[in-house]
Amino acid sequence: MIRLIEDSDPSAFEMLKLLYPHSGNAFIIGITGPPGVGKSTLIDALILEFRKLDIKIAVIAVDPTSPISGGAILGDRLRMQRHATDEKVFIRSMASRGQKGGLSRATKDAAIVLDAMGYEIIIIETVGAGQGEFEVATIAHSTGIINIPGTGDGIQTVKAGILETGDVFIVNKSDKPDADELVHHLTRMISMRKPFKTNLAKTNWTARVLKTIARDGTGVKELADTFLSHFDFMKKNSLLDQKRKKIEKSYFTSLLKDLILKKVLLFAETSGEYMEVLNKIQSREMDPLSAAELVVNNICVLKSNN
Amino acid sequence: MIRLIEDSDPSAFEMLKLLYPHSGNAFIIGITGPPGVGKSTLIDALILEFRKLDIKIAVIAVDPTSPISGGAILGDRLRMQRHATDEKVFIRSMASRGQKGGLSRATKDAAIVLDAMGYEIIIIETVGAGQGEFEVATIAHSTGIINIPGTGDGIQTVKAGILETGDVFIVNKSDKPDADELVHHLTRMISMRKPFKTNLAKTNWTARVLKTIARDGTGVKELADTFLSHFDFMKKNSLLDQKRKKIEKSYFTSLLKDLILKKVLLFAETSGEYMEVLNKIQSREMDPLSAAELVVNNICVLKSNN
Repeated sequence: MIRLIEDSDPSAFEMLKLLYPHSGNAFIIGITGPPGVGKSTLIDALILEFRKLDIKIAVIAVDPTSPISGGAILGDRLRMQRHATDEKVFIRSMASRGQKGGLSRATKDAAIVLDAMGYEIIIIETVGAGQGEFEVATIAHSTGIINIPGTGDGIQTVKAGILETGDVFIVNKSDKPDADELVHHLTRMISMRKPFKTNLAKTNWTARVLKTIARDGTGVKELADTFLSHFDFMKKNSLLDQKRKKIEKSYFTSLLKDLILKKVLLFAETSGEYMEVLNKIQSREMDPLSAAELVVNNICVLKSNN
Repeated sequence: MIRLIEDSDPSAFEMLKLLYPHSGNAFIIGITGPPGVGKSTLIDALILEFRKLDIKIAVIAVDPTSPISGGAILGDRLRMQRHATDEKVFIRSMASRGQKGGLSRATKDAAIVLDAMGYEIIIIETVGAGQGEFEVATIAHSTGIINIPGTGDGIQTVKAGILETGDVFIVNKSDKPDADELVHHLTRMISMRKPFKTNLAKTNWTARVLKTIARDGTGVKELADTFLSHFDFMKKNSLLDQKRKKIEKSYFTSLLKDLILKKVLLFAETSGEYMEVLNKIQSREMDPLSAAELVVNNICVLKSNN
């Protein structure tokens, strides 16, 4: 099913319609951070902790692999091999097939499948670099952001838009010298966050900062507990329901965009005008902006009567 | 003008139509790499080298800032301050205003403005994490990818899709212990690249690997020369013309998508059906996939006669 999703196979769309009503129970955790901070090792250790509580868990590793070769490199997944025989653990890489928005859509689709299958926790691992993080926050109920001491300066951290989207900040490789400095830095930044525009200030979750050493498991139990308590907190304060509605709206809008673009681009490209206009651009008879406007003006949109 | 572009001001679109015919002369270089590798410091040193050749140069730093707060943090730009009084140097950050595809479009738009203004070299700085790189490769004629020794393992490097899009690989902070290992690693990877599907194998540029220490300028002259010789190489082998056509096509397609989505989403959202259907999704009467299909099926597309 996930392979069909990756391939944008039309049957996946039909199957998702049937599965969707059975989804909506899983706790979806986004884990993000730049390359080299130990995301896979940490998730491997997290799986172990959640399994101690007999939680059925799935991991979707979103691989920003080459959009050109289209191949997924599975090196990281090897590190999670030890769970291969545990039937309550599912680990899968999702590779980009070139379309950018597509990977985010496909990840959400895959999460629906796993949710409907009864996985209680679904971890979505992404490389965080600003926009990547924003995407995971539109799918996940809780977002954990991993940093390690001694890479870049404070400014770099803020740049990545880390501050606004994180619920749990993880300082991994915390046996390194500057770990406490990073904890201090993150804590100070969290304290400067603008409160949500709501009167229910009491019901806001204050982001946590935790130290871990993924390699030997230090701090990972606390991390697992923190995610679970964030889930409880959201349930008790009806924040979970709000978040689910937001995720559904953004999913609906992305589906709508995909379907509209598919329909109208197909129309534009087959009308012959597209190629004609592209030739005029490349021979410099026309600029691309006027050309795009011309094509779109010549399309008229109507509400159908049936 | 660039501010109007960032704000998606309609007048920017009209002005770009007029400017476009005056663009097409600049050499556009993409510089990409993860946070902390010294991109800004290296670009600062590159500016110095290009200025020695009296080249008029512009830098667009694409900031993947928070899509929520929308604020651009200008810390990195401060490092390039020393060029502030040089009127042949222009440095500008572009911030994301939330829309993802938007930043790539806006960067291309800004490059057209600077190109039409007569900047001979335009450097586009982005944080490279797979998809980011892919985007810069759809705008730039030459792409430089920065790495530093001792972060992550070989697998991480491949993961970022680095291999296929890079023309020049830069090992910065090359006074660090593992620099030669990284050079060796990158060189081996380049030698394994699939050749382009063309009979003109002789006309392919072989990616270079260069060591730099941006902080003190070591290797930066060689880097500047390498970019310039890549430009010459492309001109001599009519690769530049091919690349320009590819960039124009991708720009036209992105404009087309933007305009179509704007037109049709506006129609869908104002037709009342959007809200009605969204309510049904959130009350679980309908799944988002069937709902999106319903809305799009009710839209009919026609070629207008005028």
